[in-house]
Amino acid sequence: MNKNSSNIMALAPNTSNKRETVCIFGTGDFGRALGHKMIQSGYPVVYGSRSSQISNLIPKDAEVLGHAEAAQKAAIIIIAIQRQHYNFLTPLAEVLRGKVLVDISNNLKLNQYPESNAEYLAQLLPGSRVVKAFNTVSAWALQSGTLDASRQVFVCGDDVEAKQMVMNIVRALGLTPLDKGSLLAAQEIENYPLQLFPMWKFPIILSFGLTAFFFLYCLALDIIYTYIYENNNFSFFIAITIPNRVCPVMALILLALVYLPGIFAAIIQLYRGTKYRRFPDWLDKWMLCRKQLGLIALAFASLHAVFTLVTPMRAFVSWRTSKGIISQVLNNKTEPLNNTNAWLSDSYLALGILGYFLFVLLGITSLPSVSNNVNWREFRFVQSKLGYLALILCTAHTLVYGGKWFLSPSAYKWYLPNIYILSLIVPCAVLVVKFVLIFPCVDKHLTQIRQGWERSPKYSE
Amino acid sequence: MNKNSSNIMALAPNTSNKRETVCIFGTGDFGRALGHKMIQSGYPVVYGSRSSQISNLIPKDAEVLGHAEAAQKAAIIIIAIQRQHYNFLTPLAEVLRGKVLVDISNNLKLNQYPESNAEYLAQLLPGSRVVKAFNTVSAWALQSGTLDASRQVFVCGDDVEAKQMVMNIVRALGLTPLDKGSLLAAQEIENYPLQLFPMWKFPIILSFGLTAFFFLYCLALDIIYTYIYENNNFSFFIAITIPNRVCPVMALILLALVYLPGIFAAIIQLYRGTKYRRFPDWLDKWMLCRKQLGLIALAFASLHAVFTLVTPMRAFVSWRTSKGIISQVLNNKTEPLNNTNAWLSDSYLALGILGYFLFVLLGITSLPSVSNNVNWREFRFVQSKLGYLALILCTAHTLVYGGKWFLSPSAYKWYLPNIYILSLIVPCAVLVVKFVLIFPCVDKHLTQIRQGWERSPKYSE
Amino acid sequence: MNKNSSNIMALAPNTSNKRETVCIFGTGDFGRALGHKMIQSGYPVVYGSRSSQISNLIPKDAEVLGHAEAAQKAAIIIIAIQRQHYNFLTPLAEVLRGKVLVDISNNLKLNQYPESNAEYLAQLLPGSRVVKAFNTVSAWALQSGTLDASRQVFVCGDDVEAKQMVMNIVRALGLTPLDKGSLLAAQEIENYPLQLFPMWKFPIILSFGLTAFFFLYCLALDIIYTYIYENNNFSFFIAITIPNRVCPVMALILLALVYLPGIFAAIIQLYRGTKYRRFPDWLDKWMLCRKQLGLIALAFASLHAVFTLVTPMRAFVSWRTSKGIISQVLNNKTEPLNNTNAWLSDSYLALGILGYFLFVLLGITSLPSVSNNVNWREFRFVQSKLGYLALILCTAHTLVYGGKWFLSPSAYKWYLPNIYILSLIVPCAVLVVKFVLIFPCVDKHLTQIRQGWERSPKYSE
Repeated sequence: MNKNSSNIMALAPNTSNKRETVCIFGTGDFGRALGHKMIQSGYPVVYGSRSSQISNLIPKDAEVLGHAEAAQKAAIIIIAIQRQHYNFLTPLAEVLRGKVLVDISNNLKLNQYPESNAEYLAQLLPGSRVVKAFNTVSAWALQSGTLDASRQVFVCGDDVEAKQMVMNIVRALGLTPLDKGSLLAAQEIENYPLQLFPMWKFPIILSFGLTAFFFLYCLALDIIYTYIYENNNFSFFIAITIPNRVCPVMALILLALVYLPGIFAAIIQLYRGTKYRRFPDWLDKWMLCRKQLGLIALAFASLHAVFTLVTPMRAFVSWRTSKGIISQVLNNKTEPLNNTNAWLSDSYLALGILGYFLFVLLGITSLPSVSNNVNWREFRFVQSKLGYLALILCTAHTLVYGGKWFLSPSAYKWYLPNIYILSLIVPCAVLVVKFVLIFPCVDKHLTQIRQGWERSPKYSE
Repeated sequence: MNKNSSNIMALAPNTSNKRETVCIFGTGDFGRALGHKMIQSGYPVVYGSRSSQISNLIPKDAEVLGHAEAAQKAAIIIIAIQRQHYNFLTPLAEVLRGKVLVDISNNLKLNQYPESNAEYLAQLLPGSRVVKAFNTVSAWALQSGTLDASRQVFVCGDDVEAKQMVMNIVRALGLTPLDKGSLLAAQEIENYPLQLFPMWKFPIILSFGLTAFFFLYCLALDIIYTYIYENNNFSFFIAITIPNRVCPVMALILLALVYLPGIFAAIIQLYRGTKYRRFPDWLDKWMLCRKQLGLIALAFASLHAVFTLVTPMRAFVSWRTSKGIISQVLNNKTEPLNNTNAWLSDSYLALGILGYFLFVLLGITSLPSVSNNVNWREFRFVQSKLGYLALILCTAHTLVYGGKWFLSPSAYKWYLPNIYILSLIVPCAVLVVKFVLIFPCVDKHLTQIRQGWERSPKYSE
Repeated sequence: MNKNSSNIMALAPNTSNKRETVCIFGTGDFGRALGHKMIQSGYPVVYGSRSSQISNLIPKDAEVLGHAEAAQKAAIIIIAIQRQHYNFLTPLAEVLRGKVLVDISNNLKLNQYPESNAEYLAQLLPGSRVVKAFNTVSAWALQSGTLDASRQVFVCGDDVEAKQMVMNIVRALGLTPLDKGSLLAAQEIENYPLQLFPMWKFPIILSFGLTAFFFLYCLALDIIYTYIYENNNFSFFIAITIPNRVCPVMALILLALVYLPGIFAAIIQLYRGTKYRRFPDWLDKWMLCRKQLGLIALAFASLHAVFTLVTPMRAFVSWRTSKGIISQVLNNKTEPLNNTNAWLSDSYLALGILGYFLFVLLGITSLPSVSNNVNWREFRFVQSKLGYLALILCTAHTLVYGGKWFLSPSAYKWYLPNIYILSLIVPCAVLVVKFVLIFPCVDKHLTQIRQGWERSPKYSE
């Protein structure tokens, strides 16, 4: 809110015109958009351009001069030109000596050049003070005044004073500067806007694949089988029944996959007898996307919860209920309460609710603002202790739910097991191995290794 | 947690008394509260007062002197007096030369004076180093030691070293300093505590108005009409049935209103053939409160979800269900499963669940800590792509729900359409126009304009 | 995401080897882990060790020298040894003069020593520039490259330049430095990793105690009583029915306990006629854990909501419904709609939904990232106004739910009241006293006191 309102203020030209002049090299789209915004925020702007004739596209309050004259008018020069043309700046080296050069360029793909654009600029003009900034802001958002995305502007540079000057401009434009350190960080800052959820790619592809597989599996067993052998058209199961079978299966498997790499890591360390060797690459990558896997599992679990809760509202369910009651009436008998059934139904519901509750808690603690407020011990307690408890509860929920059907032959249509039986394989394996790992003798050994002890130092890198 | 605990620590006087003396001008409520807190945090405090006799209200460990003597004892002087009395400081200019003056004043209304209080103070005493701080903290919260609200203290000032000194005091009091740049930011900082959800005002008023209208509309059609023409007293519909009609309608309309200004912006840009002209004011303001509109829509959607889920627990619904079953029994016939009905009921439930799921996802990504962790491309992907998908799913949910009643005459009591028909107008319009805008020929033209191309440069400002 | 990906980059040795050499004193586990990570990030590392012979455990790209020679090679020396051995550094004082010493030590318990380790180090070596950092990061997390917990590294120190150098290293390792000010903050930073949810201890113990009491109370009245006197085995009530009685009771009581200390504080201030005296210690502590109490109350309320929503899916409930319908059919009568019942059932559901909705809103605003974005006035509005509204709605929900049973003798098994009657005591008391406190005459007096007025100055400390 605060930030939004400051933006409104910044849109009106500041009356007290105390701002220092800013020079912009380049009259491309981003240079023009930035100039517009700066003039609105009260900065006198002078453009440096090859042709000093005034173009209609340039904000009319801005001056347009040749590069050298423009540079002399300002202490801060924004380089709004592309990296390929940076070498035209070398003749201006003398004029630019001591000036603050703001590199705002972006690349077209990750790690396009060996060094970042800002470092390249600093090499070309060693006498100038180069600061990287503004590359994460879009020209369109800057222009429309509606910066709904992040207002953070990453700033880095070797000269502290130059960085401060640029950060003040950032603040004056209604944005939030974030100091990322020395110019070495420029590569990372230039890569940042090119990413589209890099850590989510693998978990999402995995989820899609598994979901498609389980959906088709259910389609075959629940709709096609029923249609062929029982001549019932249950095609409407596609809308709710089948999703509500696939979602819990996916949630349970993905939750187990969050804890599986930790199990692998422990086994590898026990086998190697040291922690000072890198894990295989696939394990490293897997460990880095555990949070994403967990959040996707939570999404599936949430869908499962809602799909289950709408059950009584479905036309099919109320038809089935009516049919059951009417058949009881017509047979003139009232069934007594089946105590075992009541226990089973209540306990699998209760287990599911508690497991989901812990799951949501894990999700909340993985919000950046919450996880930044807990220390390492607290985070480990929540994610490891409560996480395993959630896995145990969810596995128990599935076991109790399906318990009575395990040995029933009707559950094996086409000799295939029901999907909830498939879903139990990974979580049960994780829980069994974890149970072995917390045996005092194994756990003590593992703790030693993690505290730096080594079985045979020859393994050390 | 961390912050709270640090507060506990700060309440006990620090044993190692290494803190520098702080002087406070003014013995009003805030000056006293701040003095108390500073003494608790281990700072020697000296008050500067007109009458140097010791008042009982002043913390007893503090010294009270005349202004000049008090100022000489400390490097940092907190000016806890009102702006109107600042000019009495001018005779002290010599004593205050080089000192750090902390302006903590607040105004009574937004932009009360042409320049901020801190800038006014800096003009009065050009030899002193003025820092703005502490104005966002309340004296009562400081006093009671229970700072439940934000612990952030905005600090700004032109002298970096002076700012560092003040920020150290802020940290020592258990608060979190936030550097807002040079003294130019003082105006914004002084306006900050005066706001009460400024961006929410319009969306909330709009929602209230629309909700009241739809509530009365439903009241007329569902209760009064039924009472007059069918002689049924359904007054209890006020509690759940009618809210559960109004909430989804509001959610859908508000969600569509989030995407409508983007449509208008695109049309205006296509018409003008340039992006370098400001949008009309109403459109600018509308675009700035899209997030708020979306969150209110999410609140309505959540209420709708819960109201729907409690349906089977309502006395009225179980009475209606019983009645249906009993009439089937008494007529001695069992209705077969209506496959179309099963499809319709399942698919509108599934569409609603998926739409709501995406909607919640949008809500989570709009949390400040989440949206700060995504770049502009990722944010646009979520808010634009997933947002439109949510709008499509929710519109489809409403269409499938009401589909069969569109042409039924019983849906037009008093010749008025049912409200879900009204609710479909805006979202359908948005989706149709958006569909036209993503046609390759239109989209390509729009992209050109947004990249800085202009049809006729004469429009340029 | 960004941070994770930067971590991946940092794992690969940086090609442009511009980093300055870092010296690490001590070859223990943390020293080795930090050295590994630094080498991976492109820093040349030299270890200072008593025996200069190369151990296999030390990363093979690192040099190992005696302490003095190692220190001379670097401007930054990381002291990875325990506080007890700090005094061996005093002979090296001359070599370490002007160097940046990074204290990374942790203690075994809170406030173990009178001064922090970093301050102790600074006293031993007054010529060096001591910076506290890295103590919140675990060696294991650093080693495995999977820093799932907070990436924040708290940094403090008296020398700004030294702090900047250390913060640059922190950033280069893919972590986020957070400047906590001067070395005075070291004590707090050293205590930080030792805490395990310190503010949550009391609320959680209180909740456990109350929950156990109410659970046993319900067990006695609902299962044991029924079994003895009515010979019904309802043992399966343990799974859902009883939790769903205990959860709402806990939620309501804990919510009332959030607002009770504010009431006490107001009464104490009115009685004393001043705000300038400290509250009793128990009240201070209670006020500081209100947020935690409220969040636990929200957890109970959420469990209550879900337990209630699954009701129609329980085997017991569908059996009871069938039984009711069948008995109506067999008696050949259809009960008409009971309008009072419909009103009661709908209104307690609606009150509960709205109360829960406000409750969730309060929970969302207490997320750190949200509460940091609202000012004090906005926070007070939400937490006080909306909070009381939530309390009123939830109390009304309970009153309407149980209204008809208050005077029924069957509600008093073994002469004990039903637990929902117990749950109403605290909230009703809070609401009644609050109602008195907002009477204009009382409220005006209280406001005066909170603005600094005192009845009799003799009370002043």
